[in-house]
Amino acid sequence: MQWYFIAALLTILTSSQGILTTLSQSNGGYSYDYATVPFLAEIFKLVVSTFFLWRECNSSSPPRMTTEWRTVRLFPIPSVIYLIHNNVQFSTLTYVDPSTYQIMGNLKIVTTGILFRLFMRRRLSTLQWMAIVLLAVGTTTSQVKGCGEASCDSLFSAPMQGYMLGLLSACLSALAGVYTEYLMKKNNDSLYWQNVQLYTFGSIFNMARLLLDDFRVGFENGPWWQRLLSGYTITTWIVVLNLGSTGLLVSWLMKYADNIVKVYSTSMAMLLTMVLSIFLFNFKPSVQLFLGIIICVISLHMYFAPVHMLVDLPVTSKRPTDTLKEVTVQQAGE
Amino acid sequence: MQWYFIAALLTILTSSQGILTTLSQSNGGYSYDYATVPFLAEIFKLVVSTFFLWRECNSSSPPRMTTEWRTVRLFPIPSVIYLIHNNVQFSTLTYVDPSTYQIMGNLKIVTTGILFRLFMRRRLSTLQWMAIVLLAVGTTTSQVKGCGEASCDSLFSAPMQGYMLGLLSACLSALAGVYTEYLMKKNNDSLYWQNVQLYTFGSIFNMARLLLDDFRVGFENGPWWQRLLSGYTITTWIVVLNLGSTGLLVSWLMKYADNIVKVYSTSMAMLLTMVLSIFLFNFKPSVQLFLGIIICVISLHMYFAPVHMLVDLPVTSKRPTDTLKEVTVQQAGE
Repeated sequence: MQWYFIAALLTILTSSQGILTTLSQSNGGYSYDYATVPFLAEIFKLVVSTFFLWRECNSSSPPRMTTEWRTVRLFPIPSVIYLIHNNVQFSTLTYVDPSTYQIMGNLKIVTTGILFRLFMRRRLSTLQWMAIVLLAVGTTTSQVKGCGEASCDSLFSAPMQGYMLGLLSACLSALAGVYTEYLMKKNNDSLYWQNVQLYTFGSIFNMARLLLDDFRVGFENGPWWQRLLSGYTITTWIVVLNLGSTGLLVSWLMKYADNIVKVYSTSMAMLLTMVLSIFLFNFKPSVQLFLGIIICVISLHMYFAPVHMLVDLPVTSKRPTDTLKEVTVQQAGE
Repeated sequence: MQWYFIAALLTILTSSQGILTTLSQSNGGYSYDYATVPFLAEIFKLVVSTFFLWRECNSSSPPRMTTEWRTVRLFPIPSVIYLIHNNVQFSTLTYVDPSTYQIMGNLKIVTTGILFRLFMRRRLSTLQWMAIVLLAVGTTTSQVKGCGEASCDSLFSAPMQGYMLGLLSACLSALAGVYTEYLMKKNNDSLYWQNVQLYTFGSIFNMARLLLDDFRVGFENGPWWQRLLSGYTITTWIVVLNLGSTGLLVSWLMKYADNIVKVYSTSMAMLLTMVLSIFLFNFKPSVQLFLGIIICVISLHMYFAPVHMLVDLPVTSKRPTDTLKEVTVQQAGE
């Protein structure tokens, strides 16, 4: 399968996630406990991966599986990072307002680039670095509050701690992504076996989080397993399946493409959601969104297009037999 | 002289123009007739160019001067285009509000690129086209009205004629620039001789415009020559000299560099003015301005940086003996 097909699918599913979540609300609120959704999505991913692993085990060429503790013990680490990230996120929001938090979230694109360079030792060209910065600038542009919007919180008025925590949050989020990529590419183990390990720990950590939340509020809503499926509608189930599917696609990209591809997919999904919201929820289209889309599309082209499509190379370096597809694959794997 | 030195100087002077014009106001209005400023600037440019031409004529190698009517008759054309442009601008403003007009003005960057390609037959790489679009997007981003601003005119609410006239205005402005470049590069005539022709017609057309304005209001403010220097302060004279100097620099760039260099200079000047206004006039810095600056700086680098600085070229096409300067000059003249 080509990575750009998976990336496009990820964009569509990630974009649907926001829209489906909005559609799953009734009377402006959730009739179900939203915190249970990621847990069920984790279970879904575990079930799907286990099924495919079982099929692989019964095939003529059984999958490569490293079962040494030295390797297995690395798989809870992404979950631990996400857990820390969640808490940092929570603290950040006590210092900054949600829209400032959203804007700062785009820093993740740049920190992913930096950690990707450091940990995966992938050289990026100056043009690719500029593309990454432009992607962050483009998504930020689309989110800038326009003239005449209701709340007008200033971006520059939060205390210093807020910005520091926002930066830490962006680093942790990038670290989790890059670390997962490192894990997936570390050896030639079957993707499904790696997924099973990842999602087993993911399910455990998600369960622990639900339990922790219960303790925090003194079980006033009862234990989480009693709330697990209450108020679930068909839309809620679609939200769960959709979230699970995006997770499986991300996992595939981590093994066969990279974090930058994922970052582009999710950024494009954010813009797609905003465009669809214009039609679905009567959102007012803004100049910012229009400008943001142009910037991100140019960034995408700068990062992924083969060099000879962007600049006129001296004749000696042109290889006229290369097709677009071949060159793209070479770039992604260099 | 290197073109980038002149371009940087043009940026500084163009940026000063806005600030000096604001400083020349007293009690929020002009104590002088602003329409007389461009006329005097035209006279200043004519005097300076005549002086340098006279010096060239007395030097050991007299300047090349084509005095045939076939060539001279082309020099009023830029003035005619500017006159039409002024009237279109005036009509546009009856349909759209000034901030929408300002935003549409950035279209000029893209139309200049297109006309430059068509008339000057200069091939631009895909990367350079993307850079030009980004420059327009970047300047637009910096001008987007932020949250909580006083007037909130919508960009999308003007009648169709307004947008059509805005587009025509952008085309005319670009046409005047590209046509001037064509004139200056048409032959190897002395720059000063070309300037003398350009500014003679410029002065005449400016005078005609002042007279026309007088007729329009039925001479209620008296004829223009009576208002010419009334209310002029030392700052007003600096505004005149500054405007004249920017004109001379533009003329130099048209002959020895090109319209794209000019467009970058004036766009950067617009951003510089906004940054300086934060310090000088207590303007509130906006996220949009910050994002716009990043976009324009990246665009500048994309357009002008030599290819080997942007991407990793195959070894065969690298020429390690090239210095940055040499490659830049080759790019500009290719």
